Amino acid sequence: MTAKLYCFGESGNAYKAALTMELSGFDYEQVFVDFFKGEARTDAFKAINPMGEVPVMVDGDLTLTQSGAIQQYVVDQTGKFGGAASDKYEVLRWVLWDNHKLSSQAGMTRFLMNFLPEDKRPQDVIGFMQGRLKAAYSVLDAALAGREWLVGDSMTVADLSCCGYLFYEEPFGFDRADWPNIDAWLTRISDTPGWKHPYDLMQRGMPA
Amino acid sequence: MTAKLYCFGESGNAYKAALTMELSGFDYEQVFVDFFKGEARTDAFKAINPMGEVPVMVDGDLTLTQSGAIQQYVVDQTGKFGGAASDKYEVLRWVLWDNHKLSSQAGMTRFLMNFLPEDKRPQDVIGFMQGRLKAAYSVLDAALAGREWLVGDSMTVADLSCCGYLFYEEPFGFDRADWPNIDAWLTRISDTPGWKHPYDLMQRGMPA
Repeated sequence: MTAKLYCFGESGNAYKAALTMELSGFDYEQVFVDFFKGEARTDAFKAINPMGEVPVMVDGDLTLTQSGAIQQYVVDQTGKFGGAASDKYEVLRWVLWDNHKLSSQAGMTRFLMNFLPEDKRPQDVIGFMQGRLKAAYSVLDAALAGREWLVGDSMTVADLSCCGYLFYEEPFGFDRADWPNIDAWLTRISDTPGWKHPYDLMQRGMPA
Repeated sequence: MTAKLYCFGESGNAYKAALTMELSGFDYEQVFVDFFKGEARTDAFKAINPMGEVPVMVDGDLTLTQSGAIQQYVVDQTGKFGGAASDKYEVLRWVLWDNHKLSSQAGMTRFLMNFLPEDKRPQDVIGFMQGRLKAAYSVLDAALAGREWLVGDSMTVADLSCCGYLFYEEPFGFDRADWPNIDAWLTRISDTPGWKHPYDLMQRGMPA
């Protein structure tokens, strides 16, 4: 049976799951969630995910949330992007770091700066978060110095997690030009056959 | 060889790793990091962890950061707290959720409210984060309704991750009395033989 991925284009967390499925050849289809119209807060959606968030994957009896858990499932099913067995903890470490320090804060800051009405954007919070994010970009850029990929010598879910929000053009304080190692690594990812920009891969809730 | 855990008492992320080691009987010793005096930013510490953070575990040739990765290593080494094999993704999902939504934001908010000089505490950011955290407590409390543990029928690293900041007494907007299911679950955790409060388990950088 074909797995279902509940997602929408603006979610970098959904993008991590969708891109991992797409590049690994995992058999799935997308179900658009109209997040900006409140669909994630409906009872029907909360029956699928009480956390009220995307992404959600449903594969037979298994319902799974959190992009990193879905990515691990796709790794286990397809044998792709898990890295060498000896790098298991290193891959997990980067996925956790991304959830802790990078995507969580980038996703929130981008939301506040772009998807809230202009008069409701908390400028103090945005400034504070941008400072925290700078520290995260700096860690990522340093980790990529002299390396092609975050772990080992091929693309893994560590890369496919950390890049989740970094292909979006909406301003949130990230400029590829400031971070040459991140910039080159994003180009390596987008040069991978089958790669798609988030807005080409998933339906947008708020088309430009 | 005995593993080393670099930690300090105020870090809930270090606590997750230390508590998992302690309760599982994993062979380890603690190395105190004087975080508030800047030790995590020294070259000597950054040689161990370029991210400049605790916890760090060193076991033979393996150096590992991120509490969730260290917890997974302890699970693999001891066979404890991993839950049933069929619950693997469910455990991972909660560890990721904790990193994404709970501990990351609780740790930061508690830091801003308690460990910054009073005149440097960004009140707008603190208020905003407390609102986000309320949503997280609400998800956790609902998930624990009618359950003893987050996943399956025994304590796992899902529990040992999500509880990371919730035993601390410093104010950060979390009151156990507001969340009865969380409250009862924290009592179950602290009733576990061998359990220790973070300040009894690890040396404090800023003793009361």
